[in-house]
Amino acid sequence: MKKVLIANRGEIAVRIIRACKEMDIETVAVYSEADKEALHVELADEAYCIGPKLSKDSYLNFSNIISVAKLTNCDGIHPGYGFLAENSSFAELCEECDIMFIGPTSDAISKMGTKDVARETMRKAGVPVVPGSTGIVASEEDGLEIAEKIGFPVIIKATAGGGGKGIRVARSREDFITGLRMTQKEAAAAFGNPGVYIEKFIEDFRHIEIQVLADSHGNAVHLGERDCSIQRRMQKLVEEAPSPALSPELRTEMGDAAVKAALAVDYRGAGTVEFIFDAVNQKFYFMEMNTRIQVEHPVTEMITGVDLIQQQLRVASGETLSFGQEDITFKGWSIECRINAENPAKNFMPSAGRVDMYLPPGGLGVRIDSAMYSGYSIPPYYDSMVAKLITFADTREEAVAKMKRALGEFVIEGVFTTIPFHLKLMDHEVFKSGDFNTKFLEKYDVLNS
Amino acid sequence: MKKVLIANRGEIAVRIIRACKEMDIETVAVYSEADKEALHVELADEAYCIGPKLSKDSYLNFSNIISVAKLTNCDGIHPGYGFLAENSSFAELCEECDIMFIGPTSDAISKMGTKDVARETMRKAGVPVVPGSTGIVASEEDGLEIAEKIGFPVIIKATAGGGGKGIRVARSREDFITGLRMTQKEAAAAFGNPGVYIEKFIEDFRHIEIQVLADSHGNAVHLGERDCSIQRRMQKLVEEAPSPALSPELRTEMGDAAVKAALAVDYRGAGTVEFIFDAVNQKFYFMEMNTRIQVEHPVTEMITGVDLIQQQLRVASGETLSFGQEDITFKGWSIECRINAENPAKNFMPSAGRVDMYLPPGGLGVRIDSAMYSGYSIPPYYDSMVAKLITFADTREEAVAKMKRALGEFVIEGVFTTIPFHLKLMDHEVFKSGDFNTKFLEKYDVLNS
Repeated sequence: MKKVLIANRGEIAVRIIRACKEMDIETVAVYSEADKEALHVELADEAYCIGPKLSKDSYLNFSNIISVAKLTNCDGIHPGYGFLAENSSFAELCEECDIMFIGPTSDAISKMGTKDVARETMRKAGVPVVPGSTGIVASEEDGLEIAEKIGFPVIIKATAGGGGKGIRVARSREDFITGLRMTQKEAAAAFGNPGVYIEKFIEDFRHIEIQVLADSHGNAVHLGERDCSIQRRMQKLVEEAPSPALSPELRTEMGDAAVKAALAVDYRGAGTVEFIFDAVNQKFYFMEMNTRIQVEHPVTEMITGVDLIQQQLRVASGETLSFGQEDITFKGWSIECRINAENPAKNFMPSAGRVDMYLPPGGLGVRIDSAMYSGYSIPPYYDSMVAKLITFADTREEAVAKMKRALGEFVIEGVFTTIPFHLKLMDHEVFKSGDFNTKFLEKYDVLNS
Repeated sequence: MKKVLIANRGEIAVRIIRACKEMDIETVAVYSEADKEALHVELADEAYCIGPKLSKDSYLNFSNIISVAKLTNCDGIHPGYGFLAENSSFAELCEECDIMFIGPTSDAISKMGTKDVARETMRKAGVPVVPGSTGIVASEEDGLEIAEKIGFPVIIKATAGGGGKGIRVARSREDFITGLRMTQKEAAAAFGNPGVYIEKFIEDFRHIEIQVLADSHGNAVHLGERDCSIQRRMQKLVEEAPSPALSPELRTEMGDAAVKAALAVDYRGAGTVEFIFDAVNQKFYFMEMNTRIQVEHPVTEMITGVDLIQQQLRVASGETLSFGQEDITFKGWSIECRINAENPAKNFMPSAGRVDMYLPPGGLGVRIDSAMYSGYSIPPYYDSMVAKLITFADTREEAVAKMKRALGEFVIEGVFTTIPFHLKLMDHEVFKSGDFNTKFLEKYDVLNS
């Protein structure tokens, strides 16, 4: 791999450019008209405008992106996360154009992206799945029968959904019929596929996911777990590694299951197998697999010392993984806070605009992944996450103390950010205890605590 | 320890404030009239002006500093490095005023600060010293006799000197007499003590130093070495840990010698034993001990995971070291570049003034210790070092690649900095080979290479 196009923007584009530079790989940035002044444009060796401000016209514009890649003789395209990262058609187009899509094959994306297929594949591979339907629900009657068999509450999920979208809980027969119809209708409109499937709804669970890494020669390892239970409306806000809830035995079991999951779809590159973890019964179930690098990958890098983006590039170049499962060791504790340009006091309303002053925290155990600078204008068209603040220390308590210190000195003037929320969270007794689940933010008014 | 006064400025003041915050210790900053807008003033819980811009009136002003400490009920004073850090009279004053000087006792400072005494103490403790005089040279005749016995070239050193000051090499009898007289005269003027001693001059050596940490209960450990051979006029510019030149056996030997050195003066806190390392003969000799935290301490923190400033605070609070020598392990490679506000193209001429734009690099394995921000004005009265850029990776090669990447994205506009010099250095074949000594920068014109 000599030259890579980065089909993304913001911090992840910067992250990928950094990894390429460290490996002496040339970089080509692409940008929308709204991103002319973006840091990834500045840092890349070359940069090309690929369309107007709206993502559908630029960052999702297949032909413009492929054209730039061809024009600049790129060997590969790194999609980052979001945008085209889990688009199997785009991956297929890259394959046809003889450009390496830095991620799994279009076939693996497709198998994991169709949630009912993924569920069946996992079940057959011996990965625990939540009790539920086998494949798509054929009719209202069938659905009802399954729901009553597994017992309410159940969750109705669009097979083409993901990331918390196209999901509805039903607590009774009546709920179920209405919920089924609405989810199907919404899924048809949002994803062009009305198919839904049913699972037992586990009320209180932790979101624990396993990072996997596989090469194209049949080798796969896991890099331990991340706990992403601090979520607001199913969007992760804080992630950590390791999980405060996992025993070494469960870590190994869950890790092995994730490797099985990856091998079942001939996975290549970095991926994440997300699990529902029922802490009361100490059981875990497959939720979904994200066939891309994730926002929260840094916490895994901090405790394993493995550079996941560099590994993606190596695997995409056809290299064999240079380490086995026994070489992966875990040291210390890492926490990531997503700093969003949002006003937490106004229901997390997005707050785009000019960053008059930007000064990230520094020092031992502090890592910043961001594309901001003093004078940067945050465009209103894209994701509101503008920085990731990651801390690393020997213990969870120290990583939390360091996060508090680092948040306290983080200067972002001109826009509202989620920093005040995170500061309160780091002082919250329940958060500090480590004993919480994905309902934490529904249960506690952190900002006013 | 509940409240600490930081008797320093710049990045080290910020570094200490950060450690205190992470340990829930209150902080009191002091500042000169030139430092009203300094970051350490902003970050501390309280801040007091202690005098005019010149150090002698402010940062070296014993009584004003002690007054602020007393007034604000501080338990301790952290002197950082430079200024009062190795001033035994100040440490003594703290002892008398019942304020913990966060460093060794005034007695240990004094023993190590008087270089001929230090040399004798080390010799008696079994630490290898360079062949030379026993104590101060009594007369010109005695000096000449010793010089001829150990053989030219010899080095004449002021006992009260240090940090590369009060030193002269003599290559012949004639050289020697002139050199002795001049060094004595200069030493009398600069340090108020004309005493000098003589050592065999080792032409080509690496500067390798060992970090030690001791508590007040007789426990001492070492945290491995730092290689600081990249020096310009005896000022360190780049440091790394581990050293590319040291075998595991020599590391252990040198580490043991450093621990002996610390124990010989009942050392307390963090200290550094500097050695001359003769790579050709694989021999090392005691150079001096710095009885304080050093600029380059971060590289040791990166490869050991030990927070040295937090350890200083713990030891000063009377805590026993929570780890023994067997618990110290080394992982990876770390390099530090000192970013000075100097113009490397104009003979490293200092370049104070307004920093119009400041954007530090980020991402995995990059650490920044600095007190700059966009709009900050670097005052011309103090040290020109304005940032430390530290990288960490598995191997030296990767740490160098990361440093190159990080230097390349470091934005400091409005003043000249040493970044262009460091960028060239990271590409220099001899530097990359790891095979160099303290004459490297005399030998190679790095900036124009």
